[in-house]
Amino acid sequence: MKTIEEKFLKLGVENAPGQEGTQKEVKLNLKGEKLEGKLVDFSHGDVDAHKPIPNSLNTFIEGYNKGGVQAYTEYKGANFIREDLAKKLKNFTGIEIDPNKNLIITPGTQGALFLAMGSLVNSGDKVCIVEPDYFANRKLVEFFDGELVPVRLDYLNTKENFAGLDLKKLENAFKQGVKLFLFSNPNNPTGVIYSDEEISKIAELAKKYDVTLLVDELYSRQIFDNRSYRHMINENVDREKIITIIGPSKTESLSGFRLGVAFGSEKIITRMEKLQAIVSLRASGYNQAVIKDWFNEPDGWMQERILNHQEIRDELVKKFRAVKGVEIRVTEGGSYIFPKLPKLEVSLNEFVKILRVHANVIVTPGTEFGPEFIDSIRLNFSQDKNLAMEAVDRIIEMIERYRV
Amino acid sequence: MKTIEEKFLKLGVENAPGQEGTQKEVKLNLKGEKLEGKLVDFSHGDVDAHKPIPNSLNTFIEGYNKGGVQAYTEYKGANFIREDLAKKLKNFTGIEIDPNKNLIITPGTQGALFLAMGSLVNSGDKVCIVEPDYFANRKLVEFFDGELVPVRLDYLNTKENFAGLDLKKLENAFKQGVKLFLFSNPNNPTGVIYSDEEISKIAELAKKYDVTLLVDELYSRQIFDNRSYRHMINENVDREKIITIIGPSKTESLSGFRLGVAFGSEKIITRMEKLQAIVSLRASGYNQAVIKDWFNEPDGWMQERILNHQEIRDELVKKFRAVKGVEIRVTEGGSYIFPKLPKLEVSLNEFVKILRVHANVIVTPGTEFGPEFIDSIRLNFSQDKNLAMEAVDRIIEMIERYRV
Repeated sequence: MKTIEEKFLKLGVENAPGQEGTQKEVKLNLKGEKLEGKLVDFSHGDVDAHKPIPNSLNTFIEGYNKGGVQAYTEYKGANFIREDLAKKLKNFTGIEIDPNKNLIITPGTQGALFLAMGSLVNSGDKVCIVEPDYFANRKLVEFFDGELVPVRLDYLNTKENFAGLDLKKLENAFKQGVKLFLFSNPNNPTGVIYSDEEISKIAELAKKYDVTLLVDELYSRQIFDNRSYRHMINENVDREKIITIIGPSKTESLSGFRLGVAFGSEKIITRMEKLQAIVSLRASGYNQAVIKDWFNEPDGWMQERILNHQEIRDELVKKFRAVKGVEIRVTEGGSYIFPKLPKLEVSLNEFVKILRVHANVIVTPGTEFGPEFIDSIRLNFSQDKNLAMEAVDRIIEMIERYRV
Repeated sequence: MKTIEEKFLKLGVENAPGQEGTQKEVKLNLKGEKLEGKLVDFSHGDVDAHKPIPNSLNTFIEGYNKGGVQAYTEYKGANFIREDLAKKLKNFTGIEIDPNKNLIITPGTQGALFLAMGSLVNSGDKVCIVEPDYFANRKLVEFFDGELVPVRLDYLNTKENFAGLDLKKLENAFKQGVKLFLFSNPNNPTGVIYSDEEISKIAELAKKYDVTLLVDELYSRQIFDNRSYRHMINENVDREKIITIIGPSKTESLSGFRLGVAFGSEKIITRMEKLQAIVSLRASGYNQAVIKDWFNEPDGWMQERILNHQEIRDELVKKFRAVKGVEIRVTEGGSYIFPKLPKLEVSLNEFVKILRVHANVIVTPGTEFGPEFIDSIRLNFSQDKNLAMEAVDRIIEMIERYRV
């Protein structure tokens, strides 16, 4: 068992998205003049460039004015909101959800992930995660003292329309007693979507080896190029061994309200509610009201948002593709690109800091998503298009300056 | 080490405040006619009867309109809000607080408690708690697999102006290797305030036995009868071994925004921020804006609120005191009374359910605050005065019906 000091040593935050301001100043190998230009923070989306769902502030105000019934909800969220939400999620996934048994509203999707992990992982449990994948997944396993079993996503060299998960390695991991498989789809940071074949195979293996599935589908509403997307919950899986996570956040620019949702196994949702009671009681009562607008956007609003993001993606990918030695896969869902850079004279961490102080660009180092990604950076391209293009030009200029 | 099933068996929520609607219907021993009257939910305060700080909705809207800078803050809360808050907390406690090192904004005070406990308690650690005390304290120790070391608060039979903590037992507990002492002051559920002598003695013992102090001062702004109140942080304690928790919630009727604060030890705050990164990222960005109005209420607003609550307290205590066999201590701070009832024909849990279905009154059973409180109920008297008085009349009528 880890001591508490060891636990927290593994939980760094200074390179995490949004935490860059907390970094200590270090001497950097600065080359050439500073590249001026308006700061672009690619560590998260820009909710000023891509506004929240119209009317969400008014819906919040309505909730506030309801008073006590909205302020104090059950720990798993207000009854009337869960009822509405269960119907909307059924439309989205095709699955019947009992709002009293299979659904919990959480403080952000991060809250849902934490509650699910706390409900499933005990000291020594083997947990399979994907590399690269969302930065908190690995840390959650560390915090609950589980044993990490990483499986590689070979997203740059795989069959067409495959995400690139190593299914043989996955089966080997499951064989060795993995209890839980946690992954995001679309994948964060690469933006790839798991193929129907991969999803079916994961489901089959989970059933065969009695592995619980925790599927983070946060970005599953923002799918590009009319691709197909398969919700794991529709596979032939044990319904008591799967939790899906989603939330009105990134795609909808509602992150500031910190709302998330988990649905699935009654047993796990019940535990999550018990845990919520001691973690934060509930998602902010007034904020829960805003869920009303989710999956209820004005006609055409989502389509337009997706098209806007597709355009930004195309421009940025084109820019990176023109750079010698950069490898990049076109985002299939979500707002991230994860370019792999050519060999540089400085370490990834130093390069990322140089971008911040010498080029007014904030990006997240690949190592947040897996220890081996020492040559990749993640950009959230939910930004003002022109500013993002200028900022990527500055990144490219810096790649040229530091190229080996 | 506990299995995860064992952990969750100890984390019940159906009797927790606000969760009464989730209780399964059971056959109750109902006597006489149903007592009609408007439902009063004493499990929490009524924010419709006692409104939030004036202007807090507008302050929220201002925050929302700021956009991205307010939506995405550092995990420990927005820099500019922490700076303002550190000054206000210094005015309140007399203690210098570095907003970058000693302060974190959390999703409610529950969030602060959880992060602090997660940062301090590892499997097998001895944690001293008070009985009775806040219902989550015991559950937090269970969840982090600590060893509970309870010390009794003899609040009904103690010297005048003493809370009634058994200081001999406390020293014995500390001697046996307790690592952390967690307690609320004013105490929840009894509303007693620790005397200066008790606070000094706790500080002295903590120093002597190297025990970390986690002091929940959520209700420390709502002190009645002009009593003195001593913040533990002002004692001669090791500043790296104390965390104080407070929040704009109960007294201010801002619970619906889910905001809390912890201040103290840099080492512990740093861990809490690391943990926040995987628990819920941050307190809702827009909601954080509302902290501006806290400790910044209109002139006389807090005094009036305290006087109003003092009046309600007096009326309810008078009613309970008139009942043969009821023991009650007058609340010194906060909004709770914790009457001890005479012996009844039904169990406490059944009685509480009878009150709900047969008298339209929701109260919290004493057993939520310690296993031995099988004859006490907790009432949050932050209610409409007349409705609360009528509801207490109904409780008393029920006591008479079920008295042995």
